[in-house]
Amino acid sequence: MTDYASVIESSLKAMGFPEECPRLYEPVAYTLAGGGKRLRPLLALVCAAACGVAPEKMLPQALAIEMFHNFTLIHDDVMDRSDTRRGRPTVFARDGAVRAILSGDALLTLATMKMAENAGDLTARLLDMFNRTALAVYEGQQLDTDFESAAPGTVSEQDYIDMILRKTAALIVLPCLVGPTVAGNDTARAALREYAIHLGLAFQLRDDWLDTFGDAATFGKPIGGDIRNRKHTLLFIRAWEKAPEAMKTAYDLADPVAAVTAIYRELGLDTAVQDLIDSECDKACHALNSAPLDSEHKEWLLGLARSLSTRTK
Amino acid sequence: MTDYASVIESSLKAMGFPEECPRLYEPVAYTLAGGGKRLRPLLALVCAAACGVAPEKMLPQALAIEMFHNFTLIHDDVMDRSDTRRGRPTVFARDGAVRAILSGDALLTLATMKMAENAGDLTARLLDMFNRTALAVYEGQQLDTDFESAAPGTVSEQDYIDMILRKTAALIVLPCLVGPTVAGNDTARAALREYAIHLGLAFQLRDDWLDTFGDAATFGKPIGGDIRNRKHTLLFIRAWEKAPEAMKTAYDLADPVAAVTAIYRELGLDTAVQDLIDSECDKACHALNSAPLDSEHKEWLLGLARSLSTRTK
Repeated sequence: MTDYASVIESSLKAMGFPEECPRLYEPVAYTLAGGGKRLRPLLALVCAAACGVAPEKMLPQALAIEMFHNFTLIHDDVMDRSDTRRGRPTVFARDGAVRAILSGDALLTLATMKMAENAGDLTARLLDMFNRTALAVYEGQQLDTDFESAAPGTVSEQDYIDMILRKTAALIVLPCLVGPTVAGNDTARAALREYAIHLGLAFQLRDDWLDTFGDAATFGKPIGGDIRNRKHTLLFIRAWEKAPEAMKTAYDLADPVAAVTAIYRELGLDTAVQDLIDSECDKACHALNSAPLDSEHKEWLLGLARSLSTRTK
Repeated sequence: MTDYASVIESSLKAMGFPEECPRLYEPVAYTLAGGGKRLRPLLALVCAAACGVAPEKMLPQALAIEMFHNFTLIHDDVMDRSDTRRGRPTVFARDGAVRAILSGDALLTLATMKMAENAGDLTARLLDMFNRTALAVYEGQQLDTDFESAAPGTVSEQDYIDMILRKTAALIVLPCLVGPTVAGNDTARAALREYAIHLGLAFQLRDDWLDTFGDAATFGKPIGGDIRNRKHTLLFIRAWEKAPEAMKTAYDLADPVAAVTAIYRELGLDTAVQDLIDSECDKACHALNSAPLDSEHKEWLLGLARSLSTRTK
């Protein structure tokens, strides 16, 4: 299979920005050069190829989605007042809130422009998908914030799943739909949507799992952040339901991470949530069973879903 | 002439937002209900009618531009940490920075969607105009911020004009171009662009003038903010060039407003800048001289330009 990762990396590197106002666009270039998995543009190119659409024709849309993702990171870091990301200072820490807000706005507009690039008759359709996805992501972020100040026991498992469907899965679904939409292949589109929803859920649930049970050095960030911030993850929601007194006692400690992690293990939640992740990955694979997709690219999509359930970083 | 102002106000009031995440969309509705001059959507409807385009067909684009303007206000108030706007608490003050950033992002995306509404074959063209204008506005805001920390004497008059062409005039030009673009009338388009550039410059220069020489009660905000914040307005730039020692002395005072205002008057800058405003309004009117526009609507545009030079609020 073509080395799409290199295509994406070199296209991002070659991307030019207006020269007139470097203080606005430099943080945009800095953020896009920061690496990351490039999962979303990879999915866009592979799903296009899997539907018989030339991937190079969908490169603007693949890059647009990666640009949108990076815009959300710039604004997230202002909202969370985060100092580091991907081992480097955030735009917020390096350039301050004003430049982070403005350059994030600019990156959102640049992403929208990129989405419309060479889209011909499909411009309105692709932009509508893009904008609806953007709203879903903001809704997910707002719900995520709301949950932070919610009392334990008031956020249900379903509330949590609904939130991550918006915050995370929506931006995994979008790149998977670009190719089949352009191909006009409704069967492939339905299958890839199903695939992407489960992939997105598995991706976020594994992220939460690693935040508690992962290895800080491999994962690339400190372990226990979700516990400390009382994030209503599936682990937290289930533990609070099954052992509220033990959880209250643990949260009375100055640092609750070790005690809460012990409760999770005692209740078998490390295994139970991992089982759910495995099940979501299985459902993602199952969705592609009879989908009319090129076999080489389908194999890559299946491999990605399988690898997600055991990813360590 | 049709009462376009009422059409705009009732359309904004009737606008619905997704119900699923009220905490994200309520600040959007709150901001759009906050009033204001509605100058930009009025220009969009009047310029459409002046070119023979049915204004009701351009209503989505008129509203889109007003929505974009309101998005910039939400983010501006976070960046400036402003507590009040239009006599009400800002979203920043009422709901905090996180919700202000997120609901601003949502309003930008909703504005982009509105711009594409019922645009048919012109979707790509109108969105491109919209997105380029958006970038110009961010560039203007970034330059405006940069100037705040610039040493006196380092920002020239031309630098200042270049900045307000982006920050203010660009979003006056856009609504004036929607109608002639849809009509395919290049002569009217060129004339309305020229008109709007001068109108935009006059609008911002009069805003600066009122910030120093206006009446707080009528203008609706405290007088002297620009002086206190060492804003490099035309008044400031010219005074620093002509009387640097007097300006330095004035800025050594705890509150420099009275002393700096006196210098401006002594140098005759109140008259000189007002003359420039009058001249910009004249140029705006002159641009429409032989433009192929419906006379009733042209008359309204001329009246607007004339009234801007003496506006007090």
